[in-house]
Amino acid sequence: MTRILKGPAVAQAINTRSTAAALALKKRGIEPQIAIVRAGERGDALSYERGATRRAEEVGIAVRPIVLDETASQAELIATVESLNADASLHGVLLLRPFPLHIDDGAVRNALAVAKDIDGITDASVIGVFTGRGRGFAPCTAQACMEILDYYGIDCAGKNAVVVGRSLVVGKPAAMMLLERNATVTIAHSRSTDLPALVRRAELVITCVGQPRMFDEHYFLPGQTVIDVGINVTADGSLVGDVDFEAVEGIVEALSPVPGGVGSVTTGVLLKHVIEAAERAMRPVP
Amino acid sequence: MTRILKGPAVAQAINTRSTAAALALKKRGIEPQIAIVRAGERGDALSYERGATRRAEEVGIAVRPIVLDETASQAELIATVESLNADASLHGVLLLRPFPLHIDDGAVRNALAVAKDIDGITDASVIGVFTGRGRGFAPCTAQACMEILDYYGIDCAGKNAVVVGRSLVVGKPAAMMLLERNATVTIAHSRSTDLPALVRRAELVITCVGQPRMFDEHYFLPGQTVIDVGINVTADGSLVGDVDFEAVEGIVEALSPVPGGVGSVTTGVLLKHVIEAAERAMRPVP
Repeated sequence: MTRILKGPAVAQAINTRSTAAALALKKRGIEPQIAIVRAGERGDALSYERGATRRAEEVGIAVRPIVLDETASQAELIATVESLNADASLHGVLLLRPFPLHIDDGAVRNALAVAKDIDGITDASVIGVFTGRGRGFAPCTAQACMEILDYYGIDCAGKNAVVVGRSLVVGKPAAMMLLERNATVTIAHSRSTDLPALVRRAELVITCVGQPRMFDEHYFLPGQTVIDVGINVTADGSLVGDVDFEAVEGIVEALSPVPGGVGSVTTGVLLKHVIEAAERAMRPVP
Repeated sequence: MTRILKGPAVAQAINTRSTAAALALKKRGIEPQIAIVRAGERGDALSYERGATRRAEEVGIAVRPIVLDETASQAELIATVESLNADASLHGVLLLRPFPLHIDDGAVRNALAVAKDIDGITDASVIGVFTGRGRGFAPCTAQACMEILDYYGIDCAGKNAVVVGRSLVVGKPAAMMLLERNATVTIAHSRSTDLPALVRRAELVITCVGQPRMFDEHYFLPGQTVIDVGINVTADGSLVGDVDFEAVEGIVEALSPVPGGVGSVTTGVLLKHVIEAAERAMRPVP
């Protein structure tokens, strides 16, 4: 029987720890606080902001919404980020992207101080993930995969892992994080040949390609652990992963569902990073 | 019969192109120039400097040696780097490392302007390699592996490649560069289980572990291409690779020797980067 690696239990465990840590910080006179920066009124940004705000308040992290007009200039956006960098009462800054089209994404991203970059979007954070030297924070979705593995006690050392997808937001960082955990890591992608055979050979599989139900029973064997990062909307409006859950359940040893898998862990990771940023800010720089 | 992927032929082809490009630059009034920065009189640094200087002059690149005392402070070293950054007549800066022990390597490395970082040692260059977005230059040894593949017409797209070794100087960047070439890339290391079977499954193998003759006939099958990055000195003073050349020659399809393989290409790559840096400096920033 396939073990279902449910996300909400992982998120709850993370949030319980964050709540305790937030309380401990407050006893020391520090109120953990996140700024959420939005330019314009895009529906998905608004809905993400609402969800993150509710969760943050639940764990005891104050939220400061920063709303700019959709027509805000790049200079205004960068000036905003710089003022948030300089504000010692803020521990994390979340930039809701994509920005409006006239904004240079890289310029704004990299204006953010790495210490407050709780979603791992700056080059300095990317460097930390690539080198394994732990500056900054990893992107939340990649980190969420690791949290699921940790919560369910799945050891990666010496295992053959395949990450299918090579994006900078998930595939590449997840591969580097598995490597840090001493997995042997294969990065596969749309140009890989005989992907089913490749995936069947792995003990641990992370799918992040954005292809609804692409990974069916031909890709899997008993004994495998599968983390499905894909969040795809089908023609009839339902949410499905990159893995064909119905076809694969019963074959593999463990499988994270969609919805209710990785996606339900990412906000918990974001808030955990805010707490860590607040804790780091207390410590003198080594 | 195994095709021997000799490095000197690759280096020669690169240097021929660099020589022509250097001439073209000079016709436009630009003398390509590299600064080689050394702190102290370490033997290996001196010998590398001599070799690089000779090669540079052969292809028509001027060399400006910058020699600091072994006791030079970190501030002096950084001030030196910054003055080289600001000098428009210089196109590349090579920092001979390791620096003396009292120097913070990261601080000096990252003082270097990415545009002049011809050996890919700054964080900004590392970002370029990880993201595939091509800022800066790749580390010369990893790039030398790619030059060998290109010269001998070995296509990587869709191939299964294994990189054994996960260093920041060779393993990780080589893996990212193979990924850019659409190979399916596995990163293996000392904690990988059943390494011989893993390596046997690959069509393309890059070894960079620093273990003399570790990869013997048990690791290979007919049809494979093997790039050996290891440069190891044995007890009797001879230079050998990570691959047991005698044991493996005759099995695989193609194999780069040590010495006379990757190591003989790296200086050519360094100089090619100087030329490219000079060419980029002529162009307006997009």
